[in-house]
Amino acid sequence: MTRLITVAAAQLGAIQRADTRESVVARMIALLENAHRRGANVVVFPELALTTFFPRWYVEDLDEADHWYEETLPSPATQPLFDAIRRYQMTCYLGYAEIAHEADETGVVRKRRFNTSVIIAPNGEIVLKYRKVHLPGHKEFSQIRKVQHLEKRYFEVGNLGYPVIRAPVGNVDGVNLGMLLCNDRRWPEAWRELGLQMVELVMLGYNTPAMNQENRGFEAHYLRNFHSQLSIQAGCYQNATFGVGVAKGGIEDGFELMGHSIIVNPQGEIMAMATGCEDQVIVADCDLGMCELGRNTIFNFAQHRRLEAYSRITTQTGSVAPPVWTPSGNS
Amino acid sequence: MTRLITVAAAQLGAIQRADTRESVVARMIALLENAHRRGANVVVFPELALTTFFPRWYVEDLDEADHWYEETLPSPATQPLFDAIRRYQMTCYLGYAEIAHEADETGVVRKRRFNTSVIIAPNGEIVLKYRKVHLPGHKEFSQIRKVQHLEKRYFEVGNLGYPVIRAPVGNVDGVNLGMLLCNDRRWPEAWRELGLQMVELVMLGYNTPAMNQENRGFEAHYLRNFHSQLSIQAGCYQNATFGVGVAKGGIEDGFELMGHSIIVNPQGEIMAMATGCEDQVIVADCDLGMCELGRNTIFNFAQHRRLEAYSRITTQTGSVAPPVWTPSGNS
Repeated sequence: MTRLITVAAAQLGAIQRADTRESVVARMIALLENAHRRGANVVVFPELALTTFFPRWYVEDLDEADHWYEETLPSPATQPLFDAIRRYQMTCYLGYAEIAHEADETGVVRKRRFNTSVIIAPNGEIVLKYRKVHLPGHKEFSQIRKVQHLEKRYFEVGNLGYPVIRAPVGNVDGVNLGMLLCNDRRWPEAWRELGLQMVELVMLGYNTPAMNQENRGFEAHYLRNFHSQLSIQAGCYQNATFGVGVAKGGIEDGFELMGHSIIVNPQGEIMAMATGCEDQVIVADCDLGMCELGRNTIFNFAQHRRLEAYSRITTQTGSVAPPVWTPSGNS
Repeated sequence: MTRLITVAAAQLGAIQRADTRESVVARMIALLENAHRRGANVVVFPELALTTFFPRWYVEDLDEADHWYEETLPSPATQPLFDAIRRYQMTCYLGYAEIAHEADETGVVRKRRFNTSVIIAPNGEIVLKYRKVHLPGHKEFSQIRKVQHLEKRYFEVGNLGYPVIRAPVGNVDGVNLGMLLCNDRRWPEAWRELGLQMVELVMLGYNTPAMNQENRGFEAHYLRNFHSQLSIQAGCYQNATFGVGVAKGGIEDGFELMGHSIIVNPQGEIMAMATGCEDQVIVADCDLGMCELGRNTIFNFAQHRRLEAYSRITTQTGSVAPPVWTPSGNS
């Protein structure tokens, strides 16, 4: 039987610093309704979808920034979104800033902050949670940067690994669902962790700026979208999975965001792309049977992967200089 | 000081089964001369560059196939190539089938066969050897295939890892050089092993057919070149390295090979592409300083990689099914 689901990328236009949660949730509900009208079973929202991308603003004391985070989900402000998910019977990916009161590595319970995404079931339950592992940027105020990028200040490194879960989507009994967040998409390690769990749909939100404000060393601005798409397309192809990359677009608090959300198939082909910079839905029918070709042939991991050749990947964090060759002088 | 080298991809047209080593070496020398005339310091030849792609032909007894392999390098037939390398003062990558009489894992010395590449210095010395890790295809004669792909029969899995070495190229004192072979390019693990050794130029030859003769499950033929380029472009971008992917083209023993050799920069951009199907040289100037932008910012591995999230990559060869979600029924 064909395992067909209809996937929607719900790209958000800019969310200004002054915008209320309630106004953003109302926009997201309108996108859900639009996706439902277009036959979608799954809707993917961006990273930190409920607020502006606040890590561009420095605060000395993080407690002053608590208002950007969610301590519970749903909260009074987000309850209408959960109600709409139930109403439209959607599976939904949502990125948000999370405060959790939980034990750290030393066993001490404290207030912890993560850049988080969840999969929400059509009945409103949380199916799976992921916390961003590859936090870009820096922790302290940078004098040399024109724009701060303080994700390493606002968030701890995610501690849930790269989980995959099999859950019903639309009429399909079980779909293997995984999540990434923003910068994760550039890291093949993250995609492979999901691929090794037979992921069939990778959901991924981001807040990438359209321009490199720093640009120490030359990088043409148009390459930023190319790099994003290249990474997602390669990740999908090399792990035989569908992928949905969902951006914010437009001018947010003075900075242009990248837009160009895409839905990609297991061949790495772009099936749909958002070309606007406002709130916008794109959809694509995804035949999950397409994941089998790669998985059973060229990317049959059991047949072809060679762990003994990969040891640097998990024993060496940074790069090391190679040995220097010297001619023997015998030639 | 600018660290500039000029890199040539020396794409070979078809090599028929009846062609002699001497005739192929003469073609390669003509390509070297062409590359020299165009200012190249490095020339990259394809995988198994001295023969037809013989793993498409089944033999019961491998000893009957010894004539496809090199027991020494240079041999009388390949000595003129080494002489030309010295004459033109080139650094050269050469793929060939290797017979080595060496100890296996059990300590027994025996005749062993590898799909191998070497870097040859301008003085004719072998700088570095690599033996292909990701052997595609199968080991036994396949009744269901229209065309055999017997790399797993003809070769053992490479046992040298993914070495990188720093050697002079042209006027540059030291360039970090690494190698891949064919199917390796689809595996981000292979690229990352090289990236973790600060590789600046990945040399890579292949023999990929232009069409999927089997195509159990639909894959449009034009996707084959897309997949090849996607993998090389992503590998270069995600490891901040230049890459040279060199194909054979034309109709070889009845089968069309892919051609479309490319030279790619650390941004993942294609700088040059071969569009013919015959013996052909493309060149590009590569400013090795370009590797630093990625290495020091978005792909600063020491700052951003998180080994604790990558454990499946080196502990789990094949993929495993994820857990199944069941609703709590409390919603």
